[in-house]
Amino acid sequence: MSSPNTPLDLTLDGGTLTARLVDFPSVSGDEQALADAVEAALRAYPHLTVDRHGNNVVARTDLGRAERILLAGHLDTVPIADNLPSHVEGDLLYGCGTSDMKSGVAVQLRLAATLPEPNRDLTFVFYDCEEVEAHRNGLGHLAAEHPDWLAADFAVLLEPSGATVEGGCQGTMRAQIRLTGVRAHSARSWLGDNAIHHAAEVLGRLARYQPRRVEIDGLEYREGLNAVRIDGGVAGNVIPDECVVTVNFRFAPDRSEADAEKHVREVFEGYEVTVTDSAPGALPGLAQPAAQAFLAATGGVARAKFGWTDVARFSAFGVPAVNYGPGEPNLAHKRDEHCSLSAVTETEQRLRAWLTS
Amino acid sequence: MSSPNTPLDLTLDGGTLTARLVDFPSVSGDEQALADAVEAALRAYPHLTVDRHGNNVVARTDLGRAERILLAGHLDTVPIADNLPSHVEGDLLYGCGTSDMKSGVAVQLRLAATLPEPNRDLTFVFYDCEEVEAHRNGLGHLAAEHPDWLAADFAVLLEPSGATVEGGCQGTMRAQIRLTGVRAHSARSWLGDNAIHHAAEVLGRLARYQPRRVEIDGLEYREGLNAVRIDGGVAGNVIPDECVVTVNFRFAPDRSEADAEKHVREVFEGYEVTVTDSAPGALPGLAQPAAQAFLAATGGVARAKFGWTDVARFSAFGVPAVNYGPGEPNLAHKRDEHCSLSAVTETEQRLRAWLTS
Repeated sequence: MSSPNTPLDLTLDGGTLTARLVDFPSVSGDEQALADAVEAALRAYPHLTVDRHGNNVVARTDLGRAERILLAGHLDTVPIADNLPSHVEGDLLYGCGTSDMKSGVAVQLRLAATLPEPNRDLTFVFYDCEEVEAHRNGLGHLAAEHPDWLAADFAVLLEPSGATVEGGCQGTMRAQIRLTGVRAHSARSWLGDNAIHHAAEVLGRLARYQPRRVEIDGLEYREGLNAVRIDGGVAGNVIPDECVVTVNFRFAPDRSEADAEKHVREVFEGYEVTVTDSAPGALPGLAQPAAQAFLAATGGVARAKFGWTDVARFSAFGVPAVNYGPGEPNLAHKRDEHCSLSAVTETEQRLRAWLTS
Repeated sequence: MSSPNTPLDLTLDGGTLTARLVDFPSVSGDEQALADAVEAALRAYPHLTVDRHGNNVVARTDLGRAERILLAGHLDTVPIADNLPSHVEGDLLYGCGTSDMKSGVAVQLRLAATLPEPNRDLTFVFYDCEEVEAHRNGLGHLAAEHPDWLAADFAVLLEPSGATVEGGCQGTMRAQIRLTGVRAHSARSWLGDNAIHHAAEVLGRLARYQPRRVEIDGLEYREGLNAVRIDGGVAGNVIPDECVVTVNFRFAPDRSEADAEKHVREVFEGYEVTVTDSAPGALPGLAQPAAQAFLAATGGVARAKFGWTDVARFSAFGVPAVNYGPGEPNLAHKRDEHCSLSAVTETEQRLRAWLTS
């Protein structure tokens, strides 16, 4: 594998550069060597202004163009699962982070190095700790400490999307529905009130729930409301006095977090509901001119992003954003993670066409 | 508190003897000193034949009477909860084991010592480890190793019953109902099948269940079928593929374990049901002549025993059995456990009347 002293050569083709990045281990929390290499490689290009905050590196052109486009990707990976160093089989590159998302980072680096005069000003963001707790997320730290570095008219997050544009993302909210009763010995159960039995109606509402589908900017979002946990019981001979159902509501980006909470409370009207955490969705923003040109350049096809991604962070400070990267989302975090080398080339070519035409 | 060397004086009145026994700590597993003292005290009476197996002591008369009555009680208590030594407040004796069941043991010892010529032959059984796992139960060990020691026409278990006859006992069975589904990311929940939602119908059946009440030998038993535990969930963003509901069925003694299992399987028809443990109930046997005479002597009133007790062990080898002891069942295992001294006297007098009239 590469040593931290091996300089990154940004003139390599996208697939080979991806392999170099994959062989540069950077599990969340351990990104410094790779951030150093990325920073050093970018500083070699005089058309870029490079900034650094922790293990987050930001490079930008400053050509006074009418629009600014931000291209973002995270440097970290999930833990290595016996899947390094990388190896090639035909068109496929195998290894930890190939899809999620060093192939996307390779495309970013290639564009940064080879587009000294793009038709729109460009900001490249490389950040750390995307795969771990939200409070460690480097993009979140940049938004808090250097919001000006993230100013843009449109953002592309190069998370794996199978080289298809995935617009916006859905929000997510977790809530607990708590049922109560009266404890008693199970041999004299009529003296108690079984809290687990009260969960029948809560689960019934979930089972009967018809999730909404909604079209926004031509993309169909699909919501979901599901129990993700249920806990109840004191002992094998005790009528339980408490049962807690934890639900996860995935909501389309036309709902705010407040709307989502109102909806969850309506569904479980009559019950004690506590929201434990939530994150807003992101509107696709595909009606914006920058987005339209981007869509045209990338084939004109977009689909909705169902999972929550960092595009919501851009959305939160007013920058429309999409997911568009060469990796395969279904291969992320898997032991046999791989990516298509031709998808890396295709993604780079389409973005290049958009930024030079 | 008494030392293991203090001999037990069985000529003391029942209340005072109870206090002596209570002040002789004998938490389950630590009964040897008390068993030694009980054995020594009984061996002083030539009308009794005394046997011992582990910390179980059996004393009997052998007068060739037409009937043999067995009086049983356990020597152990739950752990002491800062409630020793005992103390008296008016008619109440406070301390660990006062109700459950050293007051009953005191009555046994008093009858053993003072009835050299009872109208029925008597067997007194004192056993260990009733308050812990079933496989440690001394009565179970005696039934396995010395079944002849337990031969009798009728048995009285002096467990706390508030000086009222409690006939037989209900059986208990635990079973698990397992719901399955298909795991998926909660952002794309339509790709999965939520096992927790499937529990809605299982809990609905439990909530709608109408437990049977049934009269046997004039006693009303009340069944109960309850969820005592529910578990399901993989992670906060995963549609769960398994949910397990644990139910406890308390069944009247006119059902065998096989009947009880059949009933549980009928209630949850269409679901995967696994019986994890069960214990049979015990018929009250109050129609038997020995029981009728006993009932008449103790006031003629009996009620059903809902909880499971060791009377089921007697029932299992064909000896009808009732619960009849001076302690209060609702005070068992409590920090402020106590018993009524007059109930100790009354219980002893009624049993004495039955066994001498």
